[in-house]
Amino acid sequence: MNKPDNLNYLLCPRSIAVIGASSTPGRVGYTIVNNLVQSHYPGRLYPINPNIRETLGIRVYPSITAVPDDIDLAMIAVQPKSVPDIMKRCATKKVKAAIIHSAGFSEVGEEGKRLESEILKIAQENGIRIIGPNTQGIVNTAANLLALSLNFPTVKSLSRGRGIAFICQTGYFYWDWVFRHPELGLTKAVDLGNMSDLNHNDFLQNFGDDPETRVIALQIEEVHDGTRFLALAGGITKTKPIIALKAGRTQSGVRAIASHSGSLAGNDTVYDTAFKQVGIIRAHDMDELVDFIKTLSYLSPLPSGNRVAIITFSGAAAALAADACEEYSMQVAQLSQSTIKRIREILPAWATISNPIDLFQSPEVDQKMAHAVAIEALFADPNVDAIMIITLMTALHEPFDIFDILMALAKQGLGKPIVISGVRDEMGSKQWSILEANGITTYSSIRRAIKSLAIAYSRYRYLKP
Amino acid sequence: MNKPDNLNYLLCPRSIAVIGASSTPGRVGYTIVNNLVQSHYPGRLYPINPNIRETLGIRVYPSITAVPDDIDLAMIAVQPKSVPDIMKRCATKKVKAAIIHSAGFSEVGEEGKRLESEILKIAQENGIRIIGPNTQGIVNTAANLLALSLNFPTVKSLSRGRGIAFICQTGYFYWDWVFRHPELGLTKAVDLGNMSDLNHNDFLQNFGDDPETRVIALQIEEVHDGTRFLALAGGITKTKPIIALKAGRTQSGVRAIASHSGSLAGNDTVYDTAFKQVGIIRAHDMDELVDFIKTLSYLSPLPSGNRVAIITFSGAAAALAADACEEYSMQVAQLSQSTIKRIREILPAWATISNPIDLFQSPEVDQKMAHAVAIEALFADPNVDAIMIITLMTALHEPFDIFDILMALAKQGLGKPIVISGVRDEMGSKQWSILEANGITTYSSIRRAIKSLAIAYSRYRYLKP
Repeated sequence: MNKPDNLNYLLCPRSIAVIGASSTPGRVGYTIVNNLVQSHYPGRLYPINPNIRETLGIRVYPSITAVPDDIDLAMIAVQPKSVPDIMKRCATKKVKAAIIHSAGFSEVGEEGKRLESEILKIAQENGIRIIGPNTQGIVNTAANLLALSLNFPTVKSLSRGRGIAFICQTGYFYWDWVFRHPELGLTKAVDLGNMSDLNHNDFLQNFGDDPETRVIALQIEEVHDGTRFLALAGGITKTKPIIALKAGRTQSGVRAIASHSGSLAGNDTVYDTAFKQVGIIRAHDMDELVDFIKTLSYLSPLPSGNRVAIITFSGAAAALAADACEEYSMQVAQLSQSTIKRIREILPAWATISNPIDLFQSPEVDQKMAHAVAIEALFADPNVDAIMIITLMTALHEPFDIFDILMALAKQGLGKPIVISGVRDEMGSKQWSILEANGITTYSSIRRAIKSLAIAYSRYRYLKP
Repeated sequence: MNKPDNLNYLLCPRSIAVIGASSTPGRVGYTIVNNLVQSHYPGRLYPINPNIRETLGIRVYPSITAVPDDIDLAMIAVQPKSVPDIMKRCATKKVKAAIIHSAGFSEVGEEGKRLESEILKIAQENGIRIIGPNTQGIVNTAANLLALSLNFPTVKSLSRGRGIAFICQTGYFYWDWVFRHPELGLTKAVDLGNMSDLNHNDFLQNFGDDPETRVIALQIEEVHDGTRFLALAGGITKTKPIIALKAGRTQSGVRAIASHSGSLAGNDTVYDTAFKQVGIIRAHDMDELVDFIKTLSYLSPLPSGNRVAIITFSGAAAALAADACEEYSMQVAQLSQSTIKRIREILPAWATISNPIDLFQSPEVDQKMAHAVAIEALFADPNVDAIMIITLMTALHEPFDIFDILMALAKQGLGKPIVISGVRDEMGSKQWSILEANGITTYSSIRRAIKSLAIAYSRYRYLKP
C-alpha cells in the first residue's frame, strides 16, 4: 500500500468518525464529539456506536462501515483490546488517518506492546497514519479543529496568536500554555502519545514547511530516528525558533519516563549537545518554556547585542537586574553621554544618573514623562541593545501607568526590544497581556526577564550570517 | 538624652504629624495622609503645612509646634534641605520617632551625606528614632497603620495572614508580595531606606520578640553591624524562619547597589556562608522569595523526610517532577506494597503503578475517588514524607476538581505536607489561593514546587533537635 505522508488528513480532515462516541457527558466519547461541535468543526462528523442513535443532536451510526461517506480521520476511544478490530474496519472503509485515544498499549507492558504492534501492522498494510495510541489528540485552530479527548477552551476563545505550534508527548504542555496565556494563543498542537507511527519528526517536517507556524515548542521524552530529527531541526531553526522541554535530565527522571511510557530517555548530555548543535533552545521547566515561547514569538525586535539598559523605580530591584545580567552573560550597558545629559534634564539636580536608571529618585518627577524621555534617549543610544523596565502597573498607581506610552511606541515600531517586570494587580496583568501581543514581553520576575532577553540574544546570534 | 529602643512609637503611634501634607492628589504629602485615612488609622492625625488649612476633611496645622497634643511619630515629606530645620522643631515638640520620606541624602553623594549626618545628630541628641531618609515607610496591619508615601491596598483589603513581616531597604519587595498574594497578607513591613539610624537589626530584634510575627522576609543590600545581625538572626531562626533576598551576587549587582545607595554590598560569599550558619534561607529572585515565604508560612506540616510521592494525570509532567527531586536533593519515594495494592484496586488491571503515580491511565477512572484513595494511602505509607499533586483545576474539568477533597483533608488536619502544581484557569487560581490559606501550597511550575518542598525540608532539619 502507499503510505500517505500528507498529514492534512489529520490537520484538516474533511470528515471525522468518532468511534466509541457517547451521549453521556463526562465520557471520553462524549467529550470528543463535544469539542468538535463547540469549536464549529466545519467538516462532516460521524459519531459511531452500535448502542445509541444520537448524541449532541447528531445521528450516530452503528459502525464506520455503515457511514455513507468517505472518512479522512477516525478518532478511536474504545477498550484497547477492541482497537485492532476497529482498525480493520477503518481499513475496509479506506480511512486515511486515525487518532487512537485509548490507553493500555506499549506503556503498560508486553501484552500492550503486542497489541500496539498488531494495530501498527494493520495501519501500515492499509496506508493509515496513526497518532497515538494513548493520546489526547490534535488541535489546528485555523481549521477549527479541536480533535481532543479532554475539554479544552474552544477555538473561538483562543487567539491564533503568532503561529506557535506544539509537538508534545502529552497534552499537559500546550494545556498549561493555553491556560496561562489564552490571548497569546497557538496555531497547532499535537499530543503524540505512544508514537507507534507518527512522531516528532513527522510533525517537525510538516510544521517546518507550514507558513502559518512561526515558532515550534517541543516536549520530548524520547526521539525516534535521531539522525532525521537533527537534520530536520537544524533546517528549521534557520528560520523558525524551536524550544524544547525534555524531561529525563536526572536518573530519577529517566526512571519516571521508563515506568510510564516504557521508553528509554537516553543520555541527557547527548541530547543537550545535539540541541545546541542544531540551534534548539532548551527549557528546563514550565516557567522557562512559557517565558521562552513568549519571548521568541512576541518580543520584537530581537536584541542585536547584550548591553541592557534598566529603567526602574527601585534601586534595589535594579540591583537584582544587574545580578541577573551577569548571571546570564548580558551586560549592564554603559550609557552614552547624550543619554545621561537628556535624563539629567528631567531629574532633580542631586539625582544620580547611571545604569540602572532610577527615575523615581524624587516623587515630584512626572513618571510618565520621565519614562517617555528615557526610552527615547535609550532608543537613540548606540551603547544600548535592549531595555528592561521595572515598573508598577496597578489601579492604585495611575502616575506610574506607562501603558499608553508603551503602546504608542509599539504602534510606531520598536527600535529596540523592551521587556517588563515589576509589581502588578489584575488591571496590570491585563495591560501586560496587551503589551505582549504588541511585542513588549513581560515576566513575573526580574531574573526571568533578563534570562529571556539572553535567550533572545542567543537566537539573534544564531541567525546572524 | 535617653534613646528609646521602643519601636512602638513607629509601629503603634498614638499620634502622627504629617509634615509636608498636601491637598493635591498625586502629591506625596497627600498620599501619606490618604493612606492613613483609607486604612482607618485609629490614632490622632495632624497634617502640617503653613500654606493650606485642610486636606481630606482634616484640619491642617501651620507647624508641628502649633499642634495642641503630644506627637509620637512625625512623617516628613519636604525638600531635603528643609529636613534639619523640621527635625529641630520635632525635637522641640518632643516627637519620639520620625519617618523621613524625602530623598536626596547619602544616596546622592557628599552633600547629601553631610545633610543626613546633620539630621542624625539632631535625632540622637533628642532621642528621636528615624526610619530613612529615602523610605516609603512602614505598615502594621494589626494597628491599622499604613504609614506609606505610595498608594497601597488598604489594611481592610489585606489579610493579616499568618504573621509575615518584611524588613526591606525598599518597598518593592513587600509590594510585589502583596499584589501577588493579597489573600496571604502580611502583618508588618518596613522600608528602611538609607538606614541612617534604624536598620535591619532593630526590626529583627523587634519582630523576633513579636508574638504576631511568625515568618520574617529580609531584603538586604548591606547589613550594618554584622556581628549583631548574626547573633539576632541565629536566635530568631530557632523559632521563626528568616528568608533573605540579597542583591549584589555579582560584580554588576555590587556596582548597581553602590551607585544607587552609595553603600558597599560586601563579599557575597561571606553573606552566603553567614546566612547558612545562622539558618537564614536565601532566595535568589522574586519568584523564589514569594515561593519560600508562602511555603514557610503556610505549608503544614513541614516534611519530616525527603521522600516525595507524586500524583499526576500526565506521566510526562511526572518525569519533570522526578528530575526536580533529584536536582534539589529530594527522593522519588519507593511506595510501600500496601499503597501499591490499594491503588491497584482503583485502576484498570493493566495499569502501571509506581511513583510517580499516574491516576489518569484510563479515562474511565473516577479521578476524585482515585485522588482521595491515593492520598489516604500515601498518608499511611511510612515510605512517604510529602505529596506532590500535579493536577488540572479549571472550570472545564469538573471531573478533575479535587478542591473539595483537599479542603476536607485540610480541615481534618494534614498528616503530611501536600504541594500542588499544574494547569489552572481563573477559577483554579482562586481555588489555589484558598488551598494555600489552608496549608496546601501551590506553585506555578513543578520544579518550583519541588524546590520549595526541599526548602521546607531544610527548615525541618534545622529545627530538629
